[in-house]
Amino acid sequence: MALWSGRFEQGVDELTQRFGASLEVDKSMCRQDIAGSMAHARMLADQGIIGVDDAERIQEGLSRILTQIDDGDFEWDVNDEDVHMAVESKLTQMVGPAGARLHTGRSRNDQVALDLRLLAKDLLAQLMRGNLALRRTLLDEAVARRGVVMPGYTHLQHAQPVFLSHHLLAYFWMLGRDFKRLSSAFYEADANPLGAAALAGTTYPIDRFQTTESLGLDHPIPNSMDAVSDRDYLLDLLYACSVSMMHLSRLCEEIVLWSTTEFGFVTLSDSYSTGSSIMPQKKNPDFAELTRGKTGRVYGDLVALLTTMKSLPLAYNKDLQECKEGPLDAAHTLLDCMACVRGMVSTWRLDEARMEEESGKGFTAATDVADYLAKRGVPFRKAHEVVGELVLYCERHHKGLEDLTPEEFRQASELFDSDVTEDLDPRGIASARNSYGGTGTQALARQLEEARAALEADEGSLAGE
Amino acid sequence: MALWSGRFEQGVDELTQRFGASLEVDKSMCRQDIAGSMAHARMLADQGIIGVDDAERIQEGLSRILTQIDDGDFEWDVNDEDVHMAVESKLTQMVGPAGARLHTGRSRNDQVALDLRLLAKDLLAQLMRGNLALRRTLLDEAVARRGVVMPGYTHLQHAQPVFLSHHLLAYFWMLGRDFKRLSSAFYEADANPLGAAALAGTTYPIDRFQTTESLGLDHPIPNSMDAVSDRDYLLDLLYACSVSMMHLSRLCEEIVLWSTTEFGFVTLSDSYSTGSSIMPQKKNPDFAELTRGKTGRVYGDLVALLTTMKSLPLAYNKDLQECKEGPLDAAHTLLDCMACVRGMVSTWRLDEARMEEESGKGFTAATDVADYLAKRGVPFRKAHEVVGELVLYCERHHKGLEDLTPEEFRQASELFDSDVTEDLDPRGIASARNSYGGTGTQALARQLEEARAALEADEGSLAGE
Amino acid sequence: MALWSGRFEQGVDELTQRFGASLEVDKSMCRQDIAGSMAHARMLADQGIIGVDDAERIQEGLSRILTQIDDGDFEWDVNDEDVHMAVESKLTQMVGPAGARLHTGRSRNDQVALDLRLLAKDLLAQLMRGNLALRRTLLDEAVARRGVVMPGYTHLQHAQPVFLSHHLLAYFWMLGRDFKRLSSAFYEADANPLGAAALAGTTYPIDRFQTTESLGLDHPIPNSMDAVSDRDYLLDLLYACSVSMMHLSRLCEEIVLWSTTEFGFVTLSDSYSTGSSIMPQKKNPDFAELTRGKTGRVYGDLVALLTTMKSLPLAYNKDLQECKEGPLDAAHTLLDCMACVRGMVSTWRLDEARMEEESGKGFTAATDVADYLAKRGVPFRKAHEVVGELVLYCERHHKGLEDLTPEEFRQASELFDSDVTEDLDPRGIASARNSYGGTGTQALARQLEEARAALEADEGSLAGE
Amino acid sequence: MALWSGRFEQGVDELTQRFGASLEVDKSMCRQDIAGSMAHARMLADQGIIGVDDAERIQEGLSRILTQIDDGDFEWDVNDEDVHMAVESKLTQMVGPAGARLHTGRSRNDQVALDLRLLAKDLLAQLMRGNLALRRTLLDEAVARRGVVMPGYTHLQHAQPVFLSHHLLAYFWMLGRDFKRLSSAFYEADANPLGAAALAGTTYPIDRFQTTESLGLDHPIPNSMDAVSDRDYLLDLLYACSVSMMHLSRLCEEIVLWSTTEFGFVTLSDSYSTGSSIMPQKKNPDFAELTRGKTGRVYGDLVALLTTMKSLPLAYNKDLQECKEGPLDAAHTLLDCMACVRGMVSTWRLDEARMEEESGKGFTAATDVADYLAKRGVPFRKAHEVVGELVLYCERHHKGLEDLTPEEFRQASELFDSDVTEDLDPRGIASARNSYGGTGTQALARQLEEARAALEADEGSLAGE
Repeated sequence: MALWSGRFEQGVDELTQRFGASLEVDKSMCRQDIAGSMAHARMLADQGIIGVDDAERIQEGLSRILTQIDDGDFEWDVNDEDVHMAVESKLTQMVGPAGARLHTGRSRNDQVALDLRLLAKDLLAQLMRGNLALRRTLLDEAVARRGVVMPGYTHLQHAQPVFLSHHLLAYFWMLGRDFKRLSSAFYEADANPLGAAALAGTTYPIDRFQTTESLGLDHPIPNSMDAVSDRDYLLDLLYACSVSMMHLSRLCEEIVLWSTTEFGFVTLSDSYSTGSSIMPQKKNPDFAELTRGKTGRVYGDLVALLTTMKSLPLAYNKDLQECKEGPLDAAHTLLDCMACVRGMVSTWRLDEARMEEESGKGFTAATDVADYLAKRGVPFRKAHEVVGELVLYCERHHKGLEDLTPEEFRQASELFDSDVTEDLDPRGIASARNSYGGTGTQALARQLEEARAALEADEGSLAGE
Repeated sequence: MALWSGRFEQGVDELTQRFGASLEVDKSMCRQDIAGSMAHARMLADQGIIGVDDAERIQEGLSRILTQIDDGDFEWDVNDEDVHMAVESKLTQMVGPAGARLHTGRSRNDQVALDLRLLAKDLLAQLMRGNLALRRTLLDEAVARRGVVMPGYTHLQHAQPVFLSHHLLAYFWMLGRDFKRLSSAFYEADANPLGAAALAGTTYPIDRFQTTESLGLDHPIPNSMDAVSDRDYLLDLLYACSVSMMHLSRLCEEIVLWSTTEFGFVTLSDSYSTGSSIMPQKKNPDFAELTRGKTGRVYGDLVALLTTMKSLPLAYNKDLQECKEGPLDAAHTLLDCMACVRGMVSTWRLDEARMEEESGKGFTAATDVADYLAKRGVPFRKAHEVVGELVLYCERHHKGLEDLTPEEFRQASELFDSDVTEDLDPRGIASARNSYGGTGTQALARQLEEARAALEADEGSLAGE
Repeated sequence: MALWSGRFEQGVDELTQRFGASLEVDKSMCRQDIAGSMAHARMLADQGIIGVDDAERIQEGLSRILTQIDDGDFEWDVNDEDVHMAVESKLTQMVGPAGARLHTGRSRNDQVALDLRLLAKDLLAQLMRGNLALRRTLLDEAVARRGVVMPGYTHLQHAQPVFLSHHLLAYFWMLGRDFKRLSSAFYEADANPLGAAALAGTTYPIDRFQTTESLGLDHPIPNSMDAVSDRDYLLDLLYACSVSMMHLSRLCEEIVLWSTTEFGFVTLSDSYSTGSSIMPQKKNPDFAELTRGKTGRVYGDLVALLTTMKSLPLAYNKDLQECKEGPLDAAHTLLDCMACVRGMVSTWRLDEARMEEESGKGFTAATDVADYLAKRGVPFRKAHEVVGELVLYCERHHKGLEDLTPEEFRQASELFDSDVTEDLDPRGIASARNSYGGTGTQALARQLEEARAALEADEGSLAGE
Repeated sequence: MALWSGRFEQGVDELTQRFGASLEVDKSMCRQDIAGSMAHARMLADQGIIGVDDAERIQEGLSRILTQIDDGDFEWDVNDEDVHMAVESKLTQMVGPAGARLHTGRSRNDQVALDLRLLAKDLLAQLMRGNLALRRTLLDEAVARRGVVMPGYTHLQHAQPVFLSHHLLAYFWMLGRDFKRLSSAFYEADANPLGAAALAGTTYPIDRFQTTESLGLDHPIPNSMDAVSDRDYLLDLLYACSVSMMHLSRLCEEIVLWSTTEFGFVTLSDSYSTGSSIMPQKKNPDFAELTRGKTGRVYGDLVALLTTMKSLPLAYNKDLQECKEGPLDAAHTLLDCMACVRGMVSTWRLDEARMEEESGKGFTAATDVADYLAKRGVPFRKAHEVVGELVLYCERHHKGLEDLTPEEFRQASELFDSDVTEDLDPRGIASARNSYGGTGTQALARQLEEARAALEADEGSLAGE
């Protein structure tokens, strides 16, 4: 029988037992549950609400249960509705009436809210570490590849040549913002609901500041109804994961593109490729595709919880049981995807020659030719038009801009001198874009410094937790 | 080593092994996989592509594997990437080179597409049966409760009295539309991709019509690239589940409301209620809340697959591996929720007296009073205004319309006669709304007939599958 | 003052006036509203509920209002809450008390439900026509390009050569399923809620079958509460649009890819390209990108309505006002996107030579080489392995399979004869895949026939509406 | 002709003109566009890239355009693709070649990124102010109503009595977290992309720190590719709006419930209610319902942009044009909804007597009775069981706990003394829950102080912007 069955005449049946139960997903937070109960029992004794000997028996019993769980010896009873009931009933079997005193001054409502916050903190700390590791990999690769020129794209069309380092650093900065979002979610999770009891607080002289401190939380939540019904920090976690998956989906889309026969920029290592059951030649970028595809499930997890929370009246409602699986799924998915992307980037083989060769195709020097005119006094808008017509001329004659003779240039505008062709080398074009944040050599060196500093600051902030 | 590893020098590592694997979720479709392989092998032999003895050995081996699975004796090897590889490698161990001939003229791309379609058909058939059972329960309850009057609500304000049967039948018809959506999804799933091979068909003289027939499918898919990359039928399944969950969330919202102290219409049976760990008096409508809350996860599953499918180029991409868990989760969630709602509705206790008493509160007769005037020649818009002022008068004097004297009525309009109060009884008001589809007694009787006929037609269509 | 203000002492303020109003979006359905009112008035007179002369005055007044709207002369008053109130109050100004009798036996609840259904039918009919036009374009292009060979991709890696026609037909079939979804939504919309009144039907002797027939609807809705609160058909419309946008996003992703310098398969016409404000050479596939990007807004429209509908108790709730903009936005978006895709596909220039050249790269003949061995008795799984190793050999020696000598083949397996190289031409490989639904020449001819028949059947079904 | 049309032979047609255009939505950011161009021109002159006299002419022209826009005199040309082109072409008409020099060293890519960031900052500042105003209203109401007792609910069942102030403060704290999310989004928006040019920076000696300062932005974005393709801050805005709408949907759900005949806690003012076209008595909580319903559209806006961003390769893609309408819609929706909720809460009439009366129903004293036993040494779990049985006894005898005689209590447990009934008054029960964050009198006083301090801190932070 359930621990709350005093007023019930009939038990639940198999369907409702299974449907209402959350034991499987709850197992992920049994350590958090035991830590919370230990802190609660200690506080109850310190406040004289239960006897010191009862508290000791509870501590001892919970320690043994924890050991059993760690050793895989704990017997989960499918009749237990959730992890809280499972632990409490086992405890009472072990230590008798003392166990039945553990629930004094608390409710499952604040208990589950606490467990979820402790679990969220654990997940977020792992995610932040995974984020730092991936950013370290991207930065290392950006440093190692700083001489590699490639086409810069807009609309997936060749736009202007850029350095691969610059391209990779764009992802570094995206992930830096993800770190901030993860940190914000961590901060939001880091508050103590214990002592809110069912929804209204309790008449027992409990000390919420003590449990806050012993559980390593930042502060007790100042409103008991909010404490038991707030799941914002899980939405924050899901949102941070969603945006981060979106960023990874962009990088993985590029890895897929770069691995094509047509682009031919990248060959993934065998460890990050798979074959086909029918086509013997295939070497597929499965892990980039999977990461891209898994973006969907994380978005779905976010939508799920937003939907569930909509229109719920205060305070606790059973709908909130649905807030557990999504965050676990999203966090583990992102952790795996970050690890996969690290693996792909740190083991790929790049065809640097091909990248550089491609970077000159598609008239990527055109902006510089227009700027050449603008710097000689032609209003930029007019210069743009002149060069646009030059490009059309080239296309019709199957030439690149670099193939044009000085005469052909001069036909377009008399301001073209013979030095115009000096500007048409992609490496030179990329190197010269030294406005702050640009791909130019000096600008890139500065950016690498700033990236390193930003990463170290974040690493420091995490170490300080 | 993977079965496709000829061209690979290095294996995958632990992370990518785990990340790329889908064995766990695939186990849900091992029966479908074996059925597909059996049909394929038989066809290969009939077409002379493999020997009859090879085909027999394959059939026998697959039968033994199926028995092992049924008996729980099959040893799943975590090194197998997916269920297809697990079955094929076990088969080859059992029957030697014959097993290695099974994959002739097919690819995992069409194989997985087939398994998914067979699985979707199974799930959809279960869902249709669950839908019919729930509609039967609602119809039975509507018949049993046809005399019960209750307030009809708009904006959750008392609007006009209605019969509870009429209210329940609204859900019956919603669920009837769900049945159509499930049927459409079933029809979309019911096509054969086998023989599409990797993406382009095959040069072997296979007979796709034979496998179509032996697998009980409707027709072979006419384009091999579409065959391996189409997952529309899974979206259809997810969408049908989403709308159906939305309908259940509406009914469950009402069950939660009706169970409150304030409404007091319904007491759920103990089997469909749970208690509180701290508050001894609580009896909570957990299963209605859970059903409502789980709407989120099903919406999330739909969003997940829509997201994953967006912008995928042809034909198969590994992103598609992400299409399996969501439909399974959504289908099982809806199955459980339909069963729970059936359980709640068939075991609830209704306080019929209270429902009827409430149905007269909130001036629910006001429309009929306005109609009284309109039927005596007052333009409806003017009659509405007169009665609006009467209601305001009542509120100020803390009266109901039924408490007004004929004089008070006449002060509002001289067209009121003493017979006006005859129309103010909620049961009479409800009974008289006999426009087709209305809550009136005759209209309701007709509706119940039509509902029964609709249900029987759907039951017949399913039986005919 | 609002038409329902009898019982109110205070008016709404500017904020709530604006916030509660839906006049802007409602204008999209003023024609539907007038048509509904005309049918209602005629029925009221035929049933003797209002006088024939009143009905005539109403018809005349509504006709004049319609003319004013068509001529742009109708003065919308921002104080009118919605289109229903705007039309009714103007009518009453025009024709006096007769106008005030129009609302007899109906409510805004059934009125708006009717207008939405008529609007949905209009939108869906347009969408079906747009769908047919696009499929016609794709089919025409598939016929015109039937000789063009290109690489077939899986995982965006070269897999096997296919005909471009086959590739385009994959989209043809996807869109064929979209037509079915649109048709289902049309069928669901095609029912008559008028006469449900507020939620419970009415005591007036109205004839819902008459209005059903005069409005060209299929049947009256059999439950008045369902009639005023059902918005499933709008979800069906949104879902059909979402899946169709997903299909277009896939095609547009490919158009973007094919337009890159690296692929170089397609040059879009100037009419379907745009330039850059800074880079004179740019010619961007903006319309393919926009179509891809607009997939998001249509998904968002679907999620919005699913969210709004969740947990709404019966019957009408004001939340339902939020169901109008999304479907209009989604339908217009899809209409525009289908037209854009038609335009792009019917005006693109293809580099057929390059497509064919690419189709032989990436060892796309490997499956056929493995099949060569399998047809000589090697179990397919073993043949796959042998060819995998051949590919690895080629990669190391920078050769294609077509560059290997018979001796090199024979080193891999003695079963290779000198005729093996006959099978390595991409056009030959594609042409030979004649399993039903395959890309082979005969299979493709049959598929084109079936596609034409399917299109004509759908065209016929629409013409029959 | 478009300003980028040099290389084009053909213009776009009507469809693509309309489809590609974003002029309508762009008008929302014309002020931002002009401010950005002014800062850019000034910097170009200061760096010697254009002449001082050109810069002055540009400033003057832009000022005149701004005045025209403010006066409604600016003629928007539908042939202009977007606001950037509209302003630039008008400028060039006004001031000649100087206007054609404005675009030196920038691209529409960084220009639109700047405009969007300035717009997002404006919207977020408005949202933060709206948030503060609503929290002020909630706090004022919490102070004004501190003596009102009501039922506290879990599972929408009566749980324990609480003070209304406490209940309202739960929403105060939720909205406090929303303020943080809005602030984070503001901080993320507050960075300068100008100078990133197309994607790679520029060779002109521009000074991005100068434009950063003159536009009041925090810092220039350190990577030019990230600068033109990052829309995270818009996702942050959408997410902050989504969670805030979720919070409002919860409060509005309660307003709808409390306004029912059954609850009868609240009567909304006429200004925040509407009537029915058919039912003269109706007074509907339309604005609470609309706010709840509009949660869907804001969720939809978030899903839309998440979908659009998925898998986009670097750098700018036209898909990004789809990022404008959603954030505008979400921000304006939330602003209106916050204003509506303020209006409802500050003008509602509460039936305080009824709230208090209800707070004693549903055995809300049961926890305290169990605590009574626990404080006398009964293990809490056992005490819970005893009281559960008492509740069952009461239900069977149609009594409340307060109706039980001391003998009846003693039959349940001998530890009950005659003082047990002293604890059963709902006001006393609520007042005594003085654990930190509880609803008790002292705890509530402390919470009100902390709420006031938190609000003032946030008001201060905004004032400091």
